[in-house]
Amino acid sequence: MLSEFDLIKQYFVQDYAGDSRFALGIGDDCALLNPSPGMQLAISTDALVSGRHFFADAEPIGLGHKCLAVNLSDLAAMGAKPLAFTLALSLPEANPDWLAGFSQGLLSLANLHQCRLIGGDTTKGPLNICISIFGELPPGSALRRDAAQVGDDIWISGSLGDARLALASYWKEMTLTDEEHSQAASRMHRPTPRIALGIALRGIANAALDISDGLVGDLGHILDRSHVGANLDVDSLPAGPVLKKQTQEKRREFTLNGGDDYELCFTAPSHQRQAVIAAGLASQTAVTRVGIIEAELGLRLRDTNAEAINMALTSFDHFTTP
Amino acid sequence: MLSEFDLIKQYFVQDYAGDSRFALGIGDDCALLNPSPGMQLAISTDALVSGRHFFADAEPIGLGHKCLAVNLSDLAAMGAKPLAFTLALSLPEANPDWLAGFSQGLLSLANLHQCRLIGGDTTKGPLNICISIFGELPPGSALRRDAAQVGDDIWISGSLGDARLALASYWKEMTLTDEEHSQAASRMHRPTPRIALGIALRGIANAALDISDGLVGDLGHILDRSHVGANLDVDSLPAGPVLKKQTQEKRREFTLNGGDDYELCFTAPSHQRQAVIAAGLASQTAVTRVGIIEAELGLRLRDTNAEAINMALTSFDHFTTP
Repeated sequence: MLSEFDLIKQYFVQDYAGDSRFALGIGDDCALLNPSPGMQLAISTDALVSGRHFFADAEPIGLGHKCLAVNLSDLAAMGAKPLAFTLALSLPEANPDWLAGFSQGLLSLANLHQCRLIGGDTTKGPLNICISIFGELPPGSALRRDAAQVGDDIWISGSLGDARLALASYWKEMTLTDEEHSQAASRMHRPTPRIALGIALRGIANAALDISDGLVGDLGHILDRSHVGANLDVDSLPAGPVLKKQTQEKRREFTLNGGDDYELCFTAPSHQRQAVIAAGLASQTAVTRVGIIEAELGLRLRDTNAEAINMALTSFDHFTTP
Repeated sequence: MLSEFDLIKQYFVQDYAGDSRFALGIGDDCALLNPSPGMQLAISTDALVSGRHFFADAEPIGLGHKCLAVNLSDLAAMGAKPLAFTLALSLPEANPDWLAGFSQGLLSLANLHQCRLIGGDTTKGPLNICISIFGELPPGSALRRDAAQVGDDIWISGSLGDARLALASYWKEMTLTDEEHSQAASRMHRPTPRIALGIALRGIANAALDISDGLVGDLGHILDRSHVGANLDVDSLPAGPVLKKQTQEKRREFTLNGGDDYELCFTAPSHQRQAVIAAGLASQTAVTRVGIIEAELGLRLRDTNAEAINMALTSFDHFTTP
């Protein structure tokens, strides 16, 4: 049986010699970080729990990717550049195959974003993966949830709903072909954090967040904190390639309520439309305009003919859903 | 049933208006922190798991205290001043009594050290408490594990072994009076992070760490990373008030191997003895000189007559102990 310290050494040490921002990494009581002068730090923490955020038998490479991706997505939603992260891993057993796969998925994505693993903790216990992530951004440039303005356009990056569609397929609520299932499942297991888009939107977008629990619930956080309302053009919501083939009812339901896509929802003044489109092109990320921020509180759903749509909508909540 | 967001709002929001270091706290995708100009950040992450780090029925106020204390202790061991922390809480259920107690224990200690809760995440799942903590210190002043020098004195803060004694009592390995048990148990459940001492030792001590898994194993990390050995005067180790009353054999065993006391073990040049004693007085923390760093690798245990002691010693490891 591997000891706790062997584990850390064997699987989770990155080489970042020569990068003066990191004065000390794994192996001491704390990691030491030299923040870039004049920059603000963005910090986020997310825990992923077996059976809740992922299946107990989830493939470890994908799981490693996803755990870091959801944290990177929080940096993207603030417009922050990734810097470093810590990992607290609770594991039922020290299985070398699992650890090799998990660290490969985790560190591949970390290296892609030059995000350094600077500290960690491993414990025996039910599988729980807790990551804290650190990014940098110039003071005043953060894309906050409380900054939406009346008249702002509402935008969505990429596409929505395929992750939820994969879940429906796993749950046998819906039947997909193998190829469709595999395509949708890759959206669920391998979300793409929109880091480049988030950074490109600094100074252009007002408010932003990443959609983890579904657009309706998450956009609701922007509306609540900004004390505004919104009008959404439901049929303009960008459905994922597999969801596009489904009925209008499913498209509406899953683009509005499907979680786990980790796309950005952001608002920007209408005079910034060209700048938003340019930011999308520069970051090679599709951006779609889907609605408008209004003074009247609440969320109004409209179809392409601007007719009101009434749908029962609930946001995903870890403590109120089964 | 409370929703996830109600939970966070109700129990875990501190007021830190007016502190310009915190540009944005709980409720956005990330917290925003303005590091003090020219300071280095110390970062540590620890997860506490039910049944492993604490009993499943642990009293919530004490548990809240302990979870933050062990993280503050990591800052103390670097000589860093506490700044902020994040909390990822996985809970089987949203029990208001438990949450009220836990947050009281957690935030009381946080407020004592002016350490701000800046972000969090709650999930339904087996009880797991993951804290990442952030502190500040001047560059070059960190008390690292790899900085012990041959000839350094070895020092211990406070006293050792009472936390291990409490465990022995819980496990019925030993019998204590109710008063003794209660005194020892308070050391186990309410460790005191040695923040003031750690800061006072900047520029005086060379190497330091906090003792969580037992002195022998933890001092071993300093020896390994500093490429040195040590000679410990075992009978000079400061035993806790309850442990003092036990046999010499138990005193030796529990001061050397007992974990969970969260005292500092540090090394300092012999010409700094008066400065170390002054740092102890200034921080109102007992400091005891217990040995010396030597060039010869390995750890040598001596009794008061400088005779070698042979003991079977093992450090606590989460994956190799039952």
